[in-house]
Amino acid sequence: MQTIDLLIEARWIIPVEPAHTLWENHAIAVNQGRILDILPIDQARALYFPREIKVLPGHLLIPGLVNLHTHAAMSLLRGLADDLPLMEWLQNHIWPAEGRHVSKNFVHDGTLLAAAEMLRGGITCFNDMYFFPEAAAEAAETLGIRAALGLTVLEAPTSYASDAEDCLNKGLEARDRLKAHPLLSFCLAPHAPYTVSNKTFERVLTLSEQLDLPIHVHLHETQGEIDGSLKQYGLRPLQRLQELGLLSPNLIAVHGVHFNAGEIALLAQQGCSIAHCPSSNLKLASGIPPLQAWLDAGINVGLGSDGSASNNRLDLLTEMRLASLLAKGVTQNAEAAPAHQMLRMATLNGAQALGLQDKIGSLEKGKEADICALAITAPETQPCYSPQSHLVYVLDRSAVTHVWTHGQLRLNNGELQEIGKNDLINLARLWQNKIRD
Amino acid sequence: MQTIDLLIEARWIIPVEPAHTLWENHAIAVNQGRILDILPIDQARALYFPREIKVLPGHLLIPGLVNLHTHAAMSLLRGLADDLPLMEWLQNHIWPAEGRHVSKNFVHDGTLLAAAEMLRGGITCFNDMYFFPEAAAEAAETLGIRAALGLTVLEAPTSYASDAEDCLNKGLEARDRLKAHPLLSFCLAPHAPYTVSNKTFERVLTLSEQLDLPIHVHLHETQGEIDGSLKQYGLRPLQRLQELGLLSPNLIAVHGVHFNAGEIALLAQQGCSIAHCPSSNLKLASGIPPLQAWLDAGINVGLGSDGSASNNRLDLLTEMRLASLLAKGVTQNAEAAPAHQMLRMATLNGAQALGLQDKIGSLEKGKEADICALAITAPETQPCYSPQSHLVYVLDRSAVTHVWTHGQLRLNNGELQEIGKNDLINLARLWQNKIRD
Repeated sequence: MQTIDLLIEARWIIPVEPAHTLWENHAIAVNQGRILDILPIDQARALYFPREIKVLPGHLLIPGLVNLHTHAAMSLLRGLADDLPLMEWLQNHIWPAEGRHVSKNFVHDGTLLAAAEMLRGGITCFNDMYFFPEAAAEAAETLGIRAALGLTVLEAPTSYASDAEDCLNKGLEARDRLKAHPLLSFCLAPHAPYTVSNKTFERVLTLSEQLDLPIHVHLHETQGEIDGSLKQYGLRPLQRLQELGLLSPNLIAVHGVHFNAGEIALLAQQGCSIAHCPSSNLKLASGIPPLQAWLDAGINVGLGSDGSASNNRLDLLTEMRLASLLAKGVTQNAEAAPAHQMLRMATLNGAQALGLQDKIGSLEKGKEADICALAITAPETQPCYSPQSHLVYVLDRSAVTHVWTHGQLRLNNGELQEIGKNDLINLARLWQNKIRD
Repeated sequence: MQTIDLLIEARWIIPVEPAHTLWENHAIAVNQGRILDILPIDQARALYFPREIKVLPGHLLIPGLVNLHTHAAMSLLRGLADDLPLMEWLQNHIWPAEGRHVSKNFVHDGTLLAAAEMLRGGITCFNDMYFFPEAAAEAAETLGIRAALGLTVLEAPTSYASDAEDCLNKGLEARDRLKAHPLLSFCLAPHAPYTVSNKTFERVLTLSEQLDLPIHVHLHETQGEIDGSLKQYGLRPLQRLQELGLLSPNLIAVHGVHFNAGEIALLAQQGCSIAHCPSSNLKLASGIPPLQAWLDAGINVGLGSDGSASNNRLDLLTEMRLASLLAKGVTQNAEAAPAHQMLRMATLNGAQALGLQDKIGSLEKGKEADICALAITAPETQPCYSPQSHLVYVLDRSAVTHVWTHGQLRLNNGELQEIGKNDLINLARLWQNKIRD
């Protein structure tokens, strides 16, 4: 018998890859942070001697969820100003609050709160676009969540940096110091076509190619963005990025509500990814993008929560359900966006967009043991004819009981291992009092 | 000091009526099942001597939610067949399962499971359309949830009744036996224009007028329904009901996805109600109705979950959030369908549709003490700048801690008072095994 670190026995496992697979009464053998084996429980007990064993007889195991777009630290602004038009929301509420409060401490504490929320909802990796990436890294490290940190770039001065060059320099310095960390990766994150110049996009492209980093950018979120670009550049934003040479498998286009049919074909052809953020697209009244057309075109689509100021939940279970229901409603086809495809979007597709598809996103031998367990035991989850359907249409994040990243237990029966609930709440309330004043 | 049955002290109260009201650190005094007073905690302690006191320092109190459309017993078919076209879903899965299994016991047990789910999600009243209303009544009574029971009518024979007349006779008999029950009320529930004849609709109208009962009917759910009616009757279904004289404040039109502008004006003019079921409309690919246009026209719109076979959650918190987000996305107006309006739809508007607006739907002196408490204490609910916004955009039903109907505690810290969780789960699993075979 081989001694291993951990054996997780579960009623059901959906590994995502191979597709359309559901294992019953199987176990995952974990050693040195990685998945060593997945096999029937009986065989696992005969083959492996685990230092620790977790028996989850009413639970479903899935790969940890990958949140492909968020501004984590904005959790401190959750629900600050709702039911308002986009520009009033931004100009009179969000930007002034950010201008007054965003600092290293704000980013650390906000990211800590966001990471706690995400782990409690089964998210093990998030793609972040915000300021002070080192502060975000510290928070992610404290809780043991995987993070793809954005080296965020804007021309306009902020409390973080004086201009785009300053943004890049600070971001690259942070990456140099942190790049060896096993839970961290990095993206170049030019904010949007309307806040970033051609010169800066060119510099971003060079860095992306030199360092093999994905490019994480808001794109075609609103019709207004497209109209503005046509006026300023005589080009739609995607055309402009194409002319600058940015379209490649390294590009993660966020929102994409207003891509037309030709643009969808172009994105597919160039191997770009889209981060679909259905709650945020609706709440900010940007519109409803044609998810099924993206999938039919073969685009790699992941799922994002966006930030807490525009959603107001960092919750991929809600996004999976919403993405599926919306696609069915809009196409008037109940077969659109089926449950298994939503889970793939929320896991392996997100990993692929981040260049992490060999490490995370599915439960396969040799991959990192980033695992989420959900209990299908509450009365409102009964009966259960299909765990896959239940995952998307029935469960919410109160079903999430255990989360591991790199084989380490981060959430145990709903309790975070690294920080107390009251500490988090007190932190959030201190900021609330400051921000409300 | 006046002795009373119960004092509930809470951090926040949203009474729904008066509109736009948020009370902080107030208490609700309850006596003999009714709300006697709502006042600041200090004053309450000085005025009242409660036999029981519930202190909820991190909680929001709202009126118990009113689920304006469901088929409760179908909880036993939850997730039986998903991601399928409507007709394949109905003809190859749902109808055969119903044909084989629906019985008095099925309805009792399914309604018990559904009522448990609804109470755990803050729903204190549901408008049901199914068979064997006495069995549903028994389940509702066991758990202490309020029910508006449908006297369901179909021409086709079912395991419940041989034809429409038999349906009505059985329904009326059940009502005669049960009408004195304080938690029960009744609706006539002709299933839909395509399953009910003119003659039966005329009989339903007569009964509705004689007995002052609402009429609960699926209407304009799909374009196919309208096309079929034009072919068969030369009229759109709503026109047909208008010619039969059914449009009045007693009419509850369910779904209404495909009402045109003239029909919306007509429904408003006639004082009809709509039961909006956004999850079900999307999941069955019926489409996205123009909620904001309904509200602008002044229609009384309530919220429904529909049955568990097509949703798959009996969860009005999810429906409130979805209804709001959808309306914003479709109108591309972030001010559409604001949070306070969603709560009114999920409470007082539902009560009005059922003719129960003087008894339930808001927290007002003299009304029944049907109350829901939600904890705003979990990390993912922090910070909280607006409890009203949080209720719709942040909370899910895991936040629901306490529920009272008629002043009786039905859910205590998430635990049902009248039935054990394991008993419910065992019941659901017995049915699952039967139905799967």
